[in-house]
Amino acid sequence: MTETVTLSLDEAANLARAAFLTSGVTDAHADALTATVMAGQADECHSHGLYRVLGCVRSVKEGKVNPVAEPVVTEPAPAIVKVDANYGFSPLAFRTGLPRLVEKAKAQGLAALAINRCFHFSALWPEVEAVAAHGLAALALTPSHAWVAPAGGTKGVFGTNPIAFAWPRPGGFPFVFDFATSAAARGEIELHRRAGKQIPEGWAIDADGQPTTDPTAAMAGAMLTFGGHKGSALSAMVELMAGPLIGDMTSMESMAFDEGAGAAPCHGELILAFDPERFLGADAVNHVARAETLFDAIVGQGARLPSQRRFAARQRTVIDGVTIPKPLYDDIKALLG
Amino acid sequence: MTETVTLSLDEAANLARAAFLTSGVTDAHADALTATVMAGQADECHSHGLYRVLGCVRSVKEGKVNPVAEPVVTEPAPAIVKVDANYGFSPLAFRTGLPRLVEKAKAQGLAALAINRCFHFSALWPEVEAVAAHGLAALALTPSHAWVAPAGGTKGVFGTNPIAFAWPRPGGFPFVFDFATSAAARGEIELHRRAGKQIPEGWAIDADGQPTTDPTAAMAGAMLTFGGHKGSALSAMVELMAGPLIGDMTSMESMAFDEGAGAAPCHGELILAFDPERFLGADAVNHVARAETLFDAIVGQGARLPSQRRFAARQRTVIDGVTIPKPLYDDIKALLG
Repeated sequence: MTETVTLSLDEAANLARAAFLTSGVTDAHADALTATVMAGQADECHSHGLYRVLGCVRSVKEGKVNPVAEPVVTEPAPAIVKVDANYGFSPLAFRTGLPRLVEKAKAQGLAALAINRCFHFSALWPEVEAVAAHGLAALALTPSHAWVAPAGGTKGVFGTNPIAFAWPRPGGFPFVFDFATSAAARGEIELHRRAGKQIPEGWAIDADGQPTTDPTAAMAGAMLTFGGHKGSALSAMVELMAGPLIGDMTSMESMAFDEGAGAAPCHGELILAFDPERFLGADAVNHVARAETLFDAIVGQGARLPSQRRFAARQRTVIDGVTIPKPLYDDIKALLG
Repeated sequence: MTETVTLSLDEAANLARAAFLTSGVTDAHADALTATVMAGQADECHSHGLYRVLGCVRSVKEGKVNPVAEPVVTEPAPAIVKVDANYGFSPLAFRTGLPRLVEKAKAQGLAALAINRCFHFSALWPEVEAVAAHGLAALALTPSHAWVAPAGGTKGVFGTNPIAFAWPRPGGFPFVFDFATSAAARGEIELHRRAGKQIPEGWAIDADGQPTTDPTAAMAGAMLTFGGHKGSALSAMVELMAGPLIGDMTSMESMAFDEGAGAAPCHGELILAFDPERFLGADAVNHVARAETLFDAIVGQGARLPSQRRFAARQRTVIDGVTIPKPLYDDIKALLG
């Protein structure tokens, strides 16, 4: 039996915010961090929900993360906004850059938000959804730590390197996906290890480069990308676009920077925004209807659109609140002293 | 034994150009088409090489493709250039839009080239490489015909929907990939059928939605995406970005437009360009060196970068010329009457 605690969204947010503040982060950081973990918890993405409070507070206490960092916005080109997170957490940097990203996309047709030197622990879907809420399509990329071997290789070079995309839909939730280009999340391998279970084939290789289903051997070896050489190619693209292109660290460099501390990875993030109205002018409404026909053809044959489980949870938790394991609740409460 | 014919690059290009001209295309189209098929042939991508001359000429003779179409350029927003191909082939439309795409990317930091109403038969790598030759990173997407089922579905909705990417490298070939988001190319299934061979599991389902290794059943059913639900999500992104966003047809609409003629698909294409110098300013050189470190880490462990086989062929064929099957040579010669 697992004991649980159920909280209203407000109660959960107040708890998270109070816990973040114990680490010494500014009010602005606490607000942005709270919104991010609450987005995860409200969608019942438990791995990106209140569970993350503990890791964030620990990362600050270890001295890696700057708790009072003020994001600095620059605009090196008409379609580019850069936010230097100054070694603070990413959510406040994103929140700071978002209004200019939206303005630039609407002015230029498309635009890029490059976030630099941020500690990153969140999913990317809250960010692409925030862009889509302005009627824009969005694509987001970020590296992590070099745990994932390239196709045909044996040693970690790539991060889990997620790709997230959102397409705005009239009068409803956007079309959204957000997935790691690794075959599995690192946390999933760790969960198998703790549970004493083998991992599926295709997730990882051992330290000798041989396929393994042993989670401990996998953690000592390297993870694999999804989709063979195609996933590996995409992962390289994430490294290049959210690394060198924006003047920030690759997953290898980020891992070296961590010096084994195991803190949230520090690196950059790239978010692109596209304005259908600037591409299409007065015809935008007609063309956006093509997208709805596409979604109908997918759903109409019994297939699912990505993120539907999250959206169902979001509608449920606004009424029912969120339910978390009692030990997690106790650990967060313990931070409050 | 297969009889072959070896031609110098000039001889092959002259042959292709003469054959294209028999279809009634303008000199400008013949030049652009020749450059495209010669790029494929010189890289020994035989499926996108001289073999395509036959299909292009047939597509014109069937009356689907406008052989005298003049691409029309418009600029709806500072970072967007649109080229209306007017139901002509795509290579001339791309060639027409490229200079403005490059200028816009260098002025705005990033830019998009949207090509509309084009007949499309080429690989995407010649185009992303052409953008990278200007020192820009490039991403290209295009739909095709609705042969590919979404994850969890049984009926074709997506095209083979390729994604191509190029990253400029100092003093050498760029980093380039170009792959279908389907598990295999449609032509590969057809080749298995002709050879009387079974196709691998995971490529396709039959008309009842059941997995099949029978190529005939696969052609009557639906192809699958690579990488399960992740590949399916990417394929949906290609539909949305290179369809509704740019005011052009989805793969379903393109297939309906073809009315069973089996011509080259007519639809749109989206090419994005990113200028590292606008993102990075004077530091560009230092940050681009990070990318080289990434490539070194991949190659240094014995893994390959994508496109290396093509680049090796390119260096070889400039000296040795290209070798094609005698029957293909005869079929092209026959067009010349």
